Amino acid sequence: MQNPPRTHIVGAGLIGASLGIGLAAEGWDVTIEDNDPEAQALARSIGAGGAPGDDAPELVIVAVPPSAAPAVVAAALGRYPEAVVTDVASVKAPIADAAAATGASSRYVGSHPMAGREISGGLGAQGDLFKARPWVLCPNGATAEAVALVSRVPEVLQCDVVTMEASAHDAAVARVSHAPQVAASAVAAALGILDADDVALAGQGLRDVTRIAGSLPGMWADIARMNRTHLIETLGHIIDDLEDVREADDIGEALTDLIDRGRFEVARIPGKHGGASRDWTPVTVIVPDTPGQLLRLLSHTAEVGVNVEDISIEHSPRQPVGLTTLYVLPARAADLIAALERQGWEIAAS
Amino acid sequence: MQNPPRTHIVGAGLIGASLGIGLAAEGWDVTIEDNDPEAQALARSIGAGGAPGDDAPELVIVAVPPSAAPAVVAAALGRYPEAVVTDVASVKAPIADAAAATGASSRYVGSHPMAGREISGGLGAQGDLFKARPWVLCPNGATAEAVALVSRVPEVLQCDVVTMEASAHDAAVARVSHAPQVAASAVAAALGILDADDVALAGQGLRDVTRIAGSLPGMWADIARMNRTHLIETLGHIIDDLEDVREADDIGEALTDLIDRGRFEVARIPGKHGGASRDWTPVTVIVPDTPGQLLRLLSHTAEVGVNVEDISIEHSPRQPVGLTTLYVLPARAADLIAALERQGWEIAAS
Repeated sequence: MQNPPRTHIVGAGLIGASLGIGLAAEGWDVTIEDNDPEAQALARSIGAGGAPGDDAPELVIVAVPPSAAPAVVAAALGRYPEAVVTDVASVKAPIADAAAATGASSRYVGSHPMAGREISGGLGAQGDLFKARPWVLCPNGATAEAVALVSRVPEVLQCDVVTMEASAHDAAVARVSHAPQVAASAVAAALGILDADDVALAGQGLRDVTRIAGSLPGMWADIARMNRTHLIETLGHIIDDLEDVREADDIGEALTDLIDRGRFEVARIPGKHGGASRDWTPVTVIVPDTPGQLLRLLSHTAEVGVNVEDISIEHSPRQPVGLTTLYVLPARAADLIAALERQGWEIAAS
Repeated sequence: MQNPPRTHIVGAGLIGASLGIGLAAEGWDVTIEDNDPEAQALARSIGAGGAPGDDAPELVIVAVPPSAAPAVVAAALGRYPEAVVTDVASVKAPIADAAAATGASSRYVGSHPMAGREISGGLGAQGDLFKARPWVLCPNGATAEAVALVSRVPEVLQCDVVTMEASAHDAAVARVSHAPQVAASAVAAALGILDADDVALAGQGLRDVTRIAGSLPGMWADIARMNRTHLIETLGHIIDDLEDVREADDIGEALTDLIDRGRFEVARIPGKHGGASRDWTPVTVIVPDTPGQLLRLLSHTAEVGVNVEDISIEHSPRQPVGLTTLYVLPARAADLIAALERQGWEIAAS
């Protein structure tokens, strides 16, 4: 194993500072800077990197807001003519284009570390922010050496590395992330005519669909602007499908067709380790809403040796019970139900 | 407490048979019939009710598919001129209209018991199918006595009773249930151009948005046809919002506006006991994907006396770990994190 590359991070927000903490913890020599002196001082004080010294970095990580990334990546390629440069923005083609325009795209590899939730600010920085998350690498015109160097970051941080071209990445995230955000917000916004009693009819389905609609707007404006073409194309696809249902002579037939097409795609979304989540059987239990009940339930489940693959909890709006669904291997569901019933649990329809 | 009403159920599918089992278990005198002799025999054999005798029922529950409900309710009002009639379809105004056309709407009260998941067939029947779920009552032109009689069903089955007019119900379920189903299916269908590697970029956000898109089409065609006006109006609202983003001169500004409006509405969706789910603080833990780890995590949580209000599990597509998020009271989050770290758990950014 080679020594870790001397690494310089430009941008000390949540992502930059978290990368700095994570890499420094692995023994990397990390420096960090930020336009904002306070953010820079904070990042250096929490171990996200030191002040740059005389030695030029071998790797530069640009961790600035997406709209600033193209210019800052281009500037970094000029400022450090021997270094490999990467960035962490969630849209990749405009940055690859900016790197290509400098003539130094052989030294630029795009990165997109995919954190699960949107948070911001260096104060929330943690070295394991991206552990076990996908980290997309977009080599485009980079040399194999440059790709290998950048790859060391997700490898040492134990991320799940995926390699694809920048335009394919942008088309994919429009479909799996950006358009779903827009649609979830539109479904939520349509609740606006309802009074509180009506909204109380919401079940787990609505809560699931609109969960990401609760996200802060944050960088979404930048992301939408930078991925405008793919986002517009995806929204057009969704709008066309909704229009087909709205305009159909037989709305029932049109909806059945759409549901059938959607089911086919949902089955392709990875659940656990690339497998389809629909391979599990749900077992729904009525759980009193008092401390320790969930623990009791899982203890009784463990006693019969059944592994819980996933779990969801649905609270009853006005009653002191919740419906907890355990997802288990189909072959074990009957055993589990029998065992739980022997322990006095009420099994609900699932 | 009066004696339970002699109750006759028309329709021995999942809902009819489950109601029969649940009411019979409470000591009610229940009879059940179905056009399909096999379904009828099955329901009677599993304790969902007996064969009708000489005594006319006091309460008739029509549990047939939504499209058949208007005619069957009207027929029941004629066939049992002394009985109060209810039904269980998930669209209410067309059935209230059919009851009114018979001149007997004083004896008809609409019901909508809201089960969490779509399943069908008497074989899956369980007496507690609706326990702790909302049960909507739509009295419309019914007498107070008729409403009181029908109310005894959700009361004895321990449902969460909500009373509203039929048209308000239908407008509400279009927004909280029917249109979200259509939108989730459209988001899922838009994944169709992606190959498997692209879909693997999906995170918890997409899984949440599209979870209900995995539902079987089942009765959705009937539901869409019967609630067509409200569904079309709601889809129009959603399409307009998506169009505004797609057509905007500044897509970033348009999306920020939509996200802001969506966030306002999401905060109104009841989480636990009518409270907003956003009152909890997420604590995300990196959990090895081996049997018993979830139980260990909850044991360590219980040891410090922190109650888990909700839980979600996100599996890493290609790694043997998962990210488990515990939602706890904000005042307890720091204690919990400290205690879990002492036990050797890795806390991820949340």
